[in-house]
Amino acid sequence: MILTLPTSYFLVAGYAEGPTLLNAFDNALMKAGVGNTNLIKMSSILPPSCKHIEPVQLPYGALIPVAYAEDSSPQPGTPVAAAVACGVPDDRRLPGVIMEHHMTDDEKTCREIVLQKLEAGFAARGYKLAVVQMASAFGVVKEVGSAFAGVVLWT
Amino acid sequence: MILTLPTSYFLVAGYAEGPTLLNAFDNALMKAGVGNTNLIKMSSILPPSCKHIEPVQLPYGALIPVAYAEDSSPQPGTPVAAAVACGVPDDRRLPGVIMEHHMTDDEKTCREIVLQKLEAGFAARGYKLAVVQMASAFGVVKEVGSAFAGVVLWT
Amino acid sequence: MILTLPTSYFLVAGYAEGPTLLNAFDNALMKAGVGNTNLIKMSSILPPSCKHIEPVQLPYGALIPVAYAEDSSPQPGTPVAAAVACGVPDDRRLPGVIMEHHMTDDEKTCREIVLQKLEAGFAARGYKLAVVQMASAFGVVKEVGSAFAGVVLWT
Repeated sequence: MILTLPTSYFLVAGYAEGPTLLNAFDNALMKAGVGNTNLIKMSSILPPSCKHIEPVQLPYGALIPVAYAEDSSPQPGTPVAAAVACGVPDDRRLPGVIMEHHMTDDEKTCREIVLQKLEAGFAARGYKLAVVQMASAFGVVKEVGSAFAGVVLWT
Repeated sequence: MILTLPTSYFLVAGYAEGPTLLNAFDNALMKAGVGNTNLIKMSSILPPSCKHIEPVQLPYGALIPVAYAEDSSPQPGTPVAAAVACGVPDDRRLPGVIMEHHMTDDEKTCREIVLQKLEAGFAARGYKLAVVQMASAFGVVKEVGSAFAGVVLWT
Repeated sequence: MILTLPTSYFLVAGYAEGPTLLNAFDNALMKAGVGNTNLIKMSSILPPSCKHIEPVQLPYGALIPVAYAEDSSPQPGTPVAAAVACGVPDDRRLPGVIMEHHMTDDEKTCREIVLQKLEAGFAARGYKLAVVQMASAFGVVKEVGSAFAGVVLWT
């Protein structure tokens, strides 16, 4: 393997405003506690040995694999929502699955959809879903807003 | 270097349906044999020493660098195609090149275009193309469909 | 940590044409000196210890974390511009910030906007901006063109 297997994970989420879309996103990352790192986006599996932990203070500028959802808008009045869901299977020798969803709608709907995606991901694998963790962010845009939710893989 | 140089690579492809675009993509990844990993998308070079191997069973949740093409659609009746092409140069001290193409059209056209891109990439470098490997996926969407083709870098 | 902390960085930029958008982008990467590597896109922080260096010749096919902006167009006559800005804080124990901007407009405007984003990123963090480095690329598309500007993290 080129990269070592992550051994733990935690969920984060945040909504923020900013003067531009990129700054709003940057501010949402800071709100979520991952703004001073280098996020590397990935598709979305929990290694079988991976442990759920409380968010840790990540080293400044660390390269961090993360599965995430983001919704941003420069349109005042727009609702933006982002959610992630982690599922851990009954059989701990199998991998967990992470799903993402974002939409310009309310947080509850966004969480419902991401959970449906997770259930579909488990059904497609024939795995039994034992534990679900979710994180979501939501805001109604004042000037330029960004909602971010992610699962950080860590070792 | 932050990451070690990959020493081998293999090609994968798959088409699948799912209840949402993300689930269809997840299912296409599983069809391709990379669905239980964490894919990290990258731009697209084969190290000079990199060996072509048969697809290996990747560890659950491993972080996998991959160059890939994807086409997905929620529109029944739409043809979706994705293809990758790897070129290895005559002079094995030089790097190989990977190109990607995706389109809502037939597989044959998609493969022709990705090959043209590869030839253009070699011409731009002034390299002589010795070996070409290709992988592609195709389907006509029934409900929500996703075609995926990728080159996995591995060590 | 899964990945070691980068210890140095350098800025690159290039504009090029090509027969397709992907080939134009590939050629822009080569113009910028990073075309024969595997770029992994990331969000955008300089570790506190990170040193600004002159561009180095990267190993063929190396996996390279990079923050970048890209603008490409197949429309002859279109101006495309991409810029990155790195800011190093007064207090060297704090992280630096990288911002990206791309637009179908002139290079000067693109550089002004990316600098504003950087200043906003520092303001949001309450950091004092001590040093700024910028790189940008620009071209008016003849057939298919791509402008690329990036910050490469390296060790």
